Amino acid sequence: MKYIVDISVEPIGTRSTSLSPYIKTVYEVLRKRGLKFYPAPSMTSIELDDITQLGYLIKEIDDALAELGVKRIVTILKVDDRRDKENSIDHKLEVIGAKK
Amino acid sequence: MKYIVDISVEPIGTRSTSLSPYIKTVYEVLRKRGLKFYPAPSMTSIELDDITQLGYLIKEIDDALAELGVKRIVTILKVDDRRDKENSIDHKLEVIGAKK
Amino acid sequence: MKYIVDISVEPIGTRSTSLSPYIKTVYEVLRKRGLKFYPAPSMTSIELDDITQLGYLIKEIDDALAELGVKRIVTILKVDDRRDKENSIDHKLEVIGAKK
Amino acid sequence: MKYIVDISVEPIGTRSTSLSPYIKTVYEVLRKRGLKFYPAPSMTSIELDDITQLGYLIKEIDDALAELGVKRIVTILKVDDRRDKENSIDHKLEVIGAKK
Repeated sequence: MKYIVDISVEPIGTRSTSLSPYIKTVYEVLRKRGLKFYPAPSMTSIELDDITQLGYLIKEIDDALAELGVKRIVTILKVDDRRDKENSIDHKLEVIGAKK
Repeated sequence: MKYIVDISVEPIGTRSTSLSPYIKTVYEVLRKRGLKFYPAPSMTSIELDDITQLGYLIKEIDDALAELGVKRIVTILKVDDRRDKENSIDHKLEVIGAKK
Repeated sequence: MKYIVDISVEPIGTRSTSLSPYIKTVYEVLRKRGLKFYPAPSMTSIELDDITQLGYLIKEIDDALAELGVKRIVTILKVDDRRDKENSIDHKLEVIGAKK
Repeated sequence: MKYIVDISVEPIGTRSTSLSPYIKTVYEVLRKRGLKFYPAPSMTSIELDDITQLGYLIKEIDDALAELGVKRIVTILKVDDRRDKENSIDHKLEVIGAKK
C-alpha cells in the first residue's frame, strides 16, 4: 500500500530569498534513499511504501538543511493515504492528464 | 509582479474517494479565466498577476464544485509573493530542473 | 455564509529565525479590518463573510510584511467553505471542546 | 530538541460533511500516546521530542480513522524544526499572546 507524500520546505532566517539550494538538497536526500519522487513548482510528490519511514526522512532532510546553515525549517506535508485502491504518482499523473 | 498560487481542493462528504472529477473542474475554471497553470500530483500552480483576484477565483471554483453536489470544500493554498525579482512558473520549473 | 480561512505566513530570507513580529503584523491587519480571528500556535483562523475579499486581505498582509523588509512571503491558507450549514469559529471551537 | 507538528485530517469519501468525529479520534490517539497537544479550529499542534516517531503516529491515526470506515485520508502537516533555541507549544502561545 503506497502513501503519496507531498513536501515543501520553507527555511526561516536564511539571508537569501532563493529556495533552490534547499529544494535541491531535498532531491539529493530522496535520491540517496532511492525513493520515487516527482518534482513540481508547488510541492515534491514522494512515493512511500512504508509511512513509518516519514519521520526518519524528515529528520534526514532537516539535518541536511541544517548543514547548509538553516536554523529553522518549516516543512509543509500533504499525506495521501488511500486504502480502497493502489495509489501511485503515475496514477495521479494519469488522472490529471500529465502522464508522460 | 506575479504571484504563484498553489491550490489543492479536498471535497468533504462526497461518497466517492475519487478526486479526479473535482480536480478537472478546477482546471476548467482556470482555463475559462485564461490563467496560466501547471498541473501536478501534489497541487496545481497558478500564475496570478493580480492577487486581489484570488478570492473571486476561489468563489468560482467552490461554486463549480457545489454544482457537482459538494457541500463542504476544504482548499489548501500556498501563495508565493516574491518582491525582489520577477517570479513565474517557468522560472520555478527551471530551478527544479523540470523545464520542458 | 461564512468562510473560515486559516492562515500562516512564512517570511523567506529574513535574517532572524523569529516569526513573532510577522505574526503580530498579521494580527494588526486583521484587527484594523475588524475581522473576527482566533490565534493559535499552528495557524490563525479568520471568519470571512465574503470570500472575494481574501485576495485584498493577502495583499494588505504582504504589503505590511514588505514594510518590515520581507522580500519573499510564502503564505499557507486553508479555506473551509461549508454550504450545508452555517460555519463559524465558535462552532469549530465547540466541536473540538475548546469553547471558552 | 522539540518539534512542533501541526496536523489536520481531511477524510475523503465519507458521506457526512461533519469532521468532528475524525478530529476527536485524532485527539484520542494523541492522548493514548501521552503526547502534549493543543487543539485549535485550524490545526492541532503536537509536541514531538522525537521526529522519527511522526510516521508511526500518522499510521496510528490513519488506522483509527480507517476503523471508522474512512477509505481515503488526506493529512496536512506543518512541521516546525527550530535548531537555534528550544521550541514548545507554550512558547508559541506566549509569542502570540494566547498563553493561559
